[in-house]
Amino acid sequence: MDALLIQASNHDYEVVFEAGVRHRLSEHIKKAYTSIHIISDEQVAGLYLSSIVKSLEADHQVHTSIVPAGEASKSMEQYQYLLDRCVESKMDRNSLIIALGGGMIGDLAGFVASTYLRGVEFWQMPTTILAHDSSVGGKVAINHPAGKNLIGSFYNPAKVVYDIETLATLPDHELRSGYGEVVKHAMLSDKEWLFDLLNSRIDTLTKDHISNDLRKGIRVKADIVEQDEREHGIRKHLNLGHTLAHALEAELGYGTVTHGEAVAVGILFAMQLSKDILHSDLPVDDYVNWLGKNHYPMKVLKEVSPEVLVKRMKWDKKAVDGKIHYILLEQIGTPILHQISDKELHRHLNRFYSEVVYS
Amino acid sequence: MDALLIQASNHDYEVVFEAGVRHRLSEHIKKAYTSIHIISDEQVAGLYLSSIVKSLEADHQVHTSIVPAGEASKSMEQYQYLLDRCVESKMDRNSLIIALGGGMIGDLAGFVASTYLRGVEFWQMPTTILAHDSSVGGKVAINHPAGKNLIGSFYNPAKVVYDIETLATLPDHELRSGYGEVVKHAMLSDKEWLFDLLNSRIDTLTKDHISNDLRKGIRVKADIVEQDEREHGIRKHLNLGHTLAHALEAELGYGTVTHGEAVAVGILFAMQLSKDILHSDLPVDDYVNWLGKNHYPMKVLKEVSPEVLVKRMKWDKKAVDGKIHYILLEQIGTPILHQISDKELHRHLNRFYSEVVYS
Repeated sequence: MDALLIQASNHDYEVVFEAGVRHRLSEHIKKAYTSIHIISDEQVAGLYLSSIVKSLEADHQVHTSIVPAGEASKSMEQYQYLLDRCVESKMDRNSLIIALGGGMIGDLAGFVASTYLRGVEFWQMPTTILAHDSSVGGKVAINHPAGKNLIGSFYNPAKVVYDIETLATLPDHELRSGYGEVVKHAMLSDKEWLFDLLNSRIDTLTKDHISNDLRKGIRVKADIVEQDEREHGIRKHLNLGHTLAHALEAELGYGTVTHGEAVAVGILFAMQLSKDILHSDLPVDDYVNWLGKNHYPMKVLKEVSPEVLVKRMKWDKKAVDGKIHYILLEQIGTPILHQISDKELHRHLNRFYSEVVYS
Repeated sequence: MDALLIQASNHDYEVVFEAGVRHRLSEHIKKAYTSIHIISDEQVAGLYLSSIVKSLEADHQVHTSIVPAGEASKSMEQYQYLLDRCVESKMDRNSLIIALGGGMIGDLAGFVASTYLRGVEFWQMPTTILAHDSSVGGKVAINHPAGKNLIGSFYNPAKVVYDIETLATLPDHELRSGYGEVVKHAMLSDKEWLFDLLNSRIDTLTKDHISNDLRKGIRVKADIVEQDEREHGIRKHLNLGHTLAHALEAELGYGTVTHGEAVAVGILFAMQLSKDILHSDLPVDDYVNWLGKNHYPMKVLKEVSPEVLVKRMKWDKKAVDGKIHYILLEQIGTPILHQISDKELHRHLNRFYSEVVYS
């Protein structure tokens, strides 16, 4: 076993990395929970749920709930369904929820855990690379038709358990999605790591390489959220690439483009903006090359006009008083928060469209 | 102005008592909120909303939302409606929600505030005596068909503002309801105060007397929640009378009997139980006399059988591992937590029915 320790405001929690841990999950449970409720999606449940239930049911009372796969399940309807399931299974305050799946499941099951009986303990069991990001830091939420994650809480897991074997079955677009957040963590922290990433093709990475990238990414995120859990300050840096990404996802419909792919595209615009506004020296060409060889879907930008995106960005939940808060890079490893008007942003986005998207 | 200070886990907040403060609310706002969203119910809005809007709109952008009066509005439907209203009014993270009304509005609007954009600031503006209890301590929630307050958060207000003039219009059953929690706070803390209460008729109390009782009640509650915000220990003492009350309310339908009336009835059974189990010396006869002269609806007990009540109590969210956690009194001012099996509770409740309810 190999673990990181995250210091959250009301308790510390471990991130455990262990190949095959799903077969011996009971060994990690140190508390006498009344019952354990595993929440998963149809896809992940088909792959891993039975082995996990098997590893727990000898020692624990186990319930399971399954929602459809995909971002569309981060909805008020599924939230209500899962609360009903908690009630039906007679979960009390001393029960545990395990979120088994990608970021969608972690966000949805985490929001259920944060509000059922005013909060029961929950574990994150991420099965994607992307979820290395969302499983740490305590943000849980569901979507509203008007925007992503508009309804949620800050609520930290009691533990994060990564069975790195579950990453072996990820399809290409999920690898790409995960590496959208990995590359973001590299941009925020470490030039050397970034260039190592930009020189590689994602679909040829070894399990050990991926596992190492996950640890690095989680450490970058943890170092930030430990200082600013509630996002009053530097936690905003984690939104690099996200302002455009959220607008894209909302406009195309959640799930049409994966979150991490949208972030990867958003980072390119943030780099361009950093060059234009701060005259930063950034490896834009290397990054464009990396996006290309890994088949990131730059073409989705053509489906949405700059006008519509700017309107969406203005109504991002991070916008305050109509000003858009954008994360730029002074250099690799040095992000800053920049306030920009919608008008100015529109001008830059038009230029980005003509020089990059339609070039 | 006259204020109490409450120390919560993540911030301190004031409870302000001021007659007529609704006409000068702006004076109490020290922050530049982007907008202010007042949430109220039809009854309270009819009485006070226009004067509050008038006192704010010169200096602030103000939105209002109104839900039907009564416990039935603490529902998933109204929660969703209010979230939609927050989105429509383009509330950002720097906006303020004001909960104007009784405990229902405080719980509902507080839960909205705790989850909209993962939390925006909110003020409690209680307009009932009962809400002296719920406005302090940070518990917010909505109901589930299976039970009261099953879905919620711990989320402290940024301020509590009591305009004691708004208590003048309360109907008799609301006075009774409020004094159900007042008498509980006296039982938990102070024999002298309790006897002073038991010697008085609620409908003849002066405004100053009521105001004084509110302050005392809030101080009792604050002293407890400051030590144990998340109810791991002594906060459970505040549930005196509530186990039976919740079962009664759920069984009769929320709103058929007021919450505080149900609590007052529940306290009588808790006193009887304390005598039977702990041989406590408690003023049961004086309390029965007080319930009678103030017309507390003891007769509602006849509408529900002991069997049904015990089943409900077993499935109270405070029950852990099937054991019912009951708050008893060793003496006035000395509550204790007692674990009791459903069987034993059933026996005591049967006796209570034959000796008290049907006597």
